[in-house]
Parts: sequence; structure tokens; C-alpha cells
Amino acid sequence: MQYHVNGTLRDRDEATVSVDDRGFRYGDAAFETCRAYGGEVFAWDRHVKRLHRTCETLGMADAVPDDLAVRVAETLDANDFEDAYVRVSVSRGVQPGKLTPEEDVDPTVVVYVKPLPRGGVDGERVWDDPAVVQSVQTRRIPDSAVPSDAKTHNYLNGILARLELRRASNEEYRPDEALLRDTNGYVAEGATSNLFFVDDGVLKTPETGSILPGITREVVIELAESEDFPVRTGRYTPDDIRNADEAFLTNSTWELRPIATLDGIEIGGGPLTTLLQRLYDERVERRCYANSR
Amino acid sequence: MQYHVNGTLRDRDEATVSVDDRGFRYGDAAFETCRAYGGEVFAWDRHVKRLHRTCETLGMADAVPDDLAVRVAETLDANDFEDAYVRVSVSRGVQPGKLTPEEDVDPTVVVYVKPLPRGGVDGERVWDDPAVVQSVQTRRIPDSAVPSDAKTHNYLNGILARLELRRASNEEYRPDEALLRDTNGYVAEGATSNLFFVDDGVLKTPETGSILPGITREVVIELAESEDFPVRTGRYTPDDIRNADEAFLTNSTWELRPIATLDGIEIGGGPLTTLLQRLYDERVERRCYANSR
Repeated sequence: MQYHVNGTLRDRDEATVSVDDRGFRYGDAAFETCRAYGGEVFAWDRHVKRLHRTCETLGMADAVPDDLAVRVAETLDANDFEDAYVRVSVSRGVQPGKLTPEEDVDPTVVVYVKPLPRGGVDGERVWDDPAVVQSVQTRRIPDSAVPSDAKTHNYLNGILARLELRRASNEEYRPDEALLRDTNGYVAEGATSNLFFVDDGVLKTPETGSILPGITREVVIELAESEDFPVRTGRYTPDDIRNADEAFLTNSTWELRPIATLDGIEIGGGPLTTLLQRLYDERVERRCYANSR
Repeated sequence: MQYHVNGTLRDRDEATVSVDDRGFRYGDAAFETCRAYGGEVFAWDRHVKRLHRTCETLGMADAVPDDLAVRVAETLDANDFEDAYVRVSVSRGVQPGKLTPEEDVDPTVVVYVKPLPRGGVDGERVWDDPAVVQSVQTRRIPDSAVPSDAKTHNYLNGILARLELRRASNEEYRPDEALLRDTNGYVAEGATSNLFFVDDGVLKTPETGSILPGITREVVIELAESEDFPVRTGRYTPDDIRNADEAFLTNSTWELRPIATLDGIEIGGGPLTTLLQRLYDERVERRCYANSR
């Protein structure tokens, strides 16, 4: 497997960064996780826009290289991948050993790929089963401490949430996503996913402010609105979700994944979830496979 | 300059980690910053204890290698450093590309050093002047999101605070430390330092719970108590600090650094700050230079 590191394709084993890279020392980096379908990255423009925004939040507005799309395409080509997971990381690079960043940035840019067979209309999902979701004690980092719309290498908040699942697991119960609440106790998001639920025909999802506004979340909201389904964003409690008619998680690799249970209480997908999955698959088909077929 | 990476001394230019190292991908790592004086690391046992605690919080209790002190000594020797900055990082290493950590950990262990002439009784301080401190909007990440006593590579909270200083700076005003409040508005700590102030003969410092309990902070409290000065920990507002008789910051490299101004209001050191600096210097002398002289 080959990655792209600072403009050069490298065998994965030789893809390294300096231990002085601020991405390693401080998690001082931005990233995006995308999916390529048929060699085309879905919603690429949106991902690049968010990557730019994160870099701007981190005070390195110009760190995203102009030829990023070319690097991604080269990496997919070099590995002969059509359907793939794609991660792009932009760190502040090596700077003198002080916490305060220098204005002059020589970023470290890494493109990671791995094969990921597509779901889609006729394909198979990444996940085997609907998600088993468990609320955790770890609270979502508030927007006032780290802007919630920045997607950064500081991912311990989500890792600590997932570690709680390890402790909660036993032979009969193996949750695979942790649901974090914000510091006020409202539902925020999963460790790597956004949450939706259906309540009396209305599609609901936590409002921005204490969540990462996911690209898949954005697309799902648009798809629902395009079919004239009412969509509401707001503040919800775990009980709101537990009492929902349907519920699902979204992220770029899972796409839409129904929630089997939350805290052991059955919810499951349903007609709206299935319809939105279908609409999402069709959009992927239309946007990504149009050229390759 | 040579670093120690996974048991081997490496030229700094060749000291690298995989881009798949979780330390790079997620800041999923613990660290300590220490100082060596006369070849001896000050308060080493306390630093190792905290490193173990951080690793335990991160669900990798056994990640700290038993021979860590030997690796540090080898690195100091290889560089012929007596008085030095020492940083030790322990990351969760390379694991399959999922956020949820595997229980089996093959950690990445890095020892960084650089020369750092000592302050001390007859020496010079690291810093040239007392600190110019500025309160920032960025709030300290609450304990409920990431345990505050864990010292990890997720350092964006402090970096974002320091970036605010960049925006606040002009030719006349160049703050060099950012003061973060907790989400309730109480004073927490600097981006890389703890804060003390003197109020009517009492030494005060924010209580644990939304601060990193610094090793230097711990030593300073012990030194004050050993001289029968009253010490109080509690919740304080920025106004409490601005009205203080003396104020100073602590960390392992700065040791004790008086605060010249907070938000432009003069505070400065004073007799108790100077006495505690002297007591700290004497302890360093006694603990670290005893063998070498």
C-alpha cells in the first residue's frame, strides 16, 4: 500500500513524520475522512471546504495545498483503488520546540488510503449490523474550549468515549458506538458519527454548536428536504432518542447506519431510514459512477 | 542532536514515527516535560508517576517502559548534556485504522532533549522577563470531557489560547502566556503553566479539577508549607488575580516566573515569590547537583 507524504508516494512502511512534527507532539493538525467510489471522492468539495475551515481555526489558513485533489487521485491510482477509504491530514509541520505556533507554516500533508468496497444500491455495507449504541459519561468537549466544527487530530475525547465501551462490554453486549452528551446533558454525537432520529414523521438531529457538522449529515438533511420531509435541529435528551420511531448514525464510511439499540433499548431503522439510505446510494451512484460507467 | 526512539538512539533528522502512529493520527499519547540539572532529572519520580497515571487514563496502563530512566540517561549522555530540557512521550503506537483502541499496545516511546542552561542560585533563568499574561476567550477543556490530570498530546486547547495572543499582540504589547478560565468562568491555568498569587500573606492557587496538577506547582506548595506559609486552593476570578499583591506562574522549564501584568494590570512578584524561587533553587541544588559536585 502506498500513501502520499508531502508530495511523494511512499510505501506505507516508509511513510513517516518527524517526532518533532506538531501533528505528533500536540495533535496540531486538521483532517478529513472521505470515501472514493469508482475512483471518485464523494462530496470532495465539501470536505475540502471543511478542511480549509479547520486550518483557518488553527491559524494556518494557507496550509491546504492547491493540488490536494491531484495527490488523492495519484494515491488511488498508485494503489489501483476504485472504492476506498481516503483520509487527508494537514499538520502544522516541524517548528521550533515551543507551544506557540509560528506564523510561517511548512505543513505536513498526508494522504492515507485503504480499500473499502462500496455499499450502494447493489453493494454491501461497511458495517455488518445496525449499531449498538451506548451513552457514556465522557462529555463532548464544549465549543468554547475547542471549536466544535474543527476536525482535528485531537481525538482523545472520542477515544475516551470508546474506551468506556470496552469497560461496558461483555459476552452478550458489545456496543460499537459511544453516544456523547454535551456538558449540559443534551445529546451531541457519536465518537465518529452524527445522530438522527424520527419522531412522529419528523427527522430530528442535534443542532450545531456542540457537534462536528458531518458532511454525510449535511447531505442527509438535504435529501430529506428535497423529498419534503420535515427536518428539525434542536437540543434533545437521551430519552428523546430512546422513544424515537427510528434512529440512525451517519458518517462518511458508514453512510447511514440504523441504530439497533440505545442503552439496551430497541429502536431500529424504519421506512424513512431506508428511504434516506436509498436516496444517499442513488446520489453516490449519480455523482461518482457517472464517469466510470 | 540525538533522540531516543523505541529503544534506539537516532539523529534528530532520522527520528520519525509512522504516519499511522496513533500519536500522529489522534494525539493518542501521554507525555512529560522535565528538566535535567547537572545530568539529573529533577522530580523524576513524580513525573514518572504522572506519566503512568495518564497512560492508565488512556487505557494503556502498561505502556510506560520499565527502563525509561535508563533511556533518558542514555540520551543525555549521547548528547553530552548536563543541563537540559527533557520530554518523554508514550503513544499508543501503530494499530489497525480504527478509532477504538486495541487492548494490546506496542507503544511508541520517544525521549527528546535539548540543551537548557540552568537557572538556579547562581545561574540564569530561562525567561528574560516576568510574564505578560493575557486572559483569553478559549476555555479550559472540562474534566468531564478529558480528565484534566492527564498530560496528553491533545494540546490544541492551549495552542488555540496561544493563538489568541497572536491576535492581541502589537508593537507595544506582546503577551507571552494565555490565561484560561474554566467553563464556569473561574481562573484555571496558563497554556503551559499553573498560576499562584499572594493575597494578604496567603499563597493561593486554583484547585485541582480543571487544571493539570503541575509537578512544579506541587513542589511550590510543599515548599511554602514547609516554611509555615498558609496555602489555600480554591476557585478564583480574574479580578482576584488582578488585585493580588504578588503573582507568578510555574512549570518545569520556567520554574517560578513572576507575572508582570495580567490583562495590562500590573501585579509583579514580591518577597514571597522571591523566597519561593530561592527555596526552589536550593532544592534543585540539593537534589540534582549533590552527586555531580
